[in-house]
Amino acid sequence: MTNNHLARLSASLGYVFRQEGLLRQALTHRSYSAQHNERLEFLGDSVLNCTIAKALYDTFPNLPEGTLSRMRANLVKQDTLAEIAIQLKLGDYMLLGEGELKSGGFRRPSILADTLESIFGAVFLDAGFDAAQAVVLRQFQPVIAGIDPNASGKDAKTRLQEWLQAKRHPLPDYRLSGTRGEAHDQIFVVACHIPALGITTQGQGRSRRAAEQEAALAVLKQVGEIK
Amino acid sequence: MTNNHLARLSASLGYVFRQEGLLRQALTHRSYSAQHNERLEFLGDSVLNCTIAKALYDTFPNLPEGTLSRMRANLVKQDTLAEIAIQLKLGDYMLLGEGELKSGGFRRPSILADTLESIFGAVFLDAGFDAAQAVVLRQFQPVIAGIDPNASGKDAKTRLQEWLQAKRHPLPDYRLSGTRGEAHDQIFVVACHIPALGITTQGQGRSRRAAEQEAALAVLKQVGEIK
Repeated sequence: MTNNHLARLSASLGYVFRQEGLLRQALTHRSYSAQHNERLEFLGDSVLNCTIAKALYDTFPNLPEGTLSRMRANLVKQDTLAEIAIQLKLGDYMLLGEGELKSGGFRRPSILADTLESIFGAVFLDAGFDAAQAVVLRQFQPVIAGIDPNASGKDAKTRLQEWLQAKRHPLPDYRLSGTRGEAHDQIFVVACHIPALGITTQGQGRSRRAAEQEAALAVLKQVGEIK
Repeated sequence: MTNNHLARLSASLGYVFRQEGLLRQALTHRSYSAQHNERLEFLGDSVLNCTIAKALYDTFPNLPEGTLSRMRANLVKQDTLAEIAIQLKLGDYMLLGEGELKSGGFRRPSILADTLESIFGAVFLDAGFDAAQAVVLRQFQPVIAGIDPNASGKDAKTRLQEWLQAKRHPLPDYRLSGTRGEAHDQIFVVACHIPALGITTQGQGRSRRAAEQEAALAVLKQVGEIK
């Protein structure tokens, strides 16, 4: 791992570490070294939660606590974190043991998400809460800006399920119809079929779940639940 | 609620609000006014979690993430928060609707705990993370200093249960043997009976669960599991 290499990651994060060892530790999976990132992940998870809580509190002054909680759960879940980690190309920087490398650990959503949280924790240690908050928001602000407050923070799959249940229709059937791209940079394609309505839609995304969300969203649009 | 009255609370918290309206809102239960504390509680819960995570990370440099997580769960749970709220006499300051007042809401652990979290959230809004962190630590530092790292963050009831299970003994039997003090300021007394060993101990505390913990601790001491 050369300094040049890490400089690229610093640029994407919008943050230059004073103690570069902290960044290196944040990128180190337990399979690679005893000096791994799990304690930093613990710290980073809490900074992330606190930052998102504050951002949602400020952005949606009229929403009740329950809605803010649901919104936050959606934002800090593994899929969202893994997608951000992929955008940051964290897979290129992570230090994994040989076994994990061979089994493709650098593209596993759980490892990607944990590494991202570890980086947030490392910034918190390096320069305090406000610095960590800025690094988190740089990644999350666009997502938060795109939230529809009328959707009560529920994701498309949940909304579709509730809409179908209210009409006493059977639940949707999600099926992986294929993948595109190289293993390192894969796109999943999922079909969502609503038997009661004879509707089938498609969605795609960096994870199976993201593709399912897109397919569910397409159904909601088709039945007029979302404009 | 006079200013003098709030000044006493400020002194206990070690923090003077710039925007006193925030403190007033933090003390306001939803039964009292539409301008209540639930959104502040959402914010305060996250500040509390983040502050405790950082304090445990710093205090126990050699403990793994799982142990820190368990320790934190123990520290931020309702019982611990309610006990701190009682020490701060928050019940004297809370604004409750008539129904809650009559049913003794000012001594309900859930309301006390939520109000304490709301105060942490109000400080976060009033002066930022570092100020909130200081207010949280003033209350929690003594508790954190008293944690036994060898206990792996497990509480006495959990440790007693695991110790009995390892010996294939039946689980302990906790019974409320009485309460002391006025309704407003009650002490619970609980007996813990271990049928297999013919041991019975007593514990007392501000909540039933705290009394159970003390009784379990007494058993662990009696069998030599804790010095």
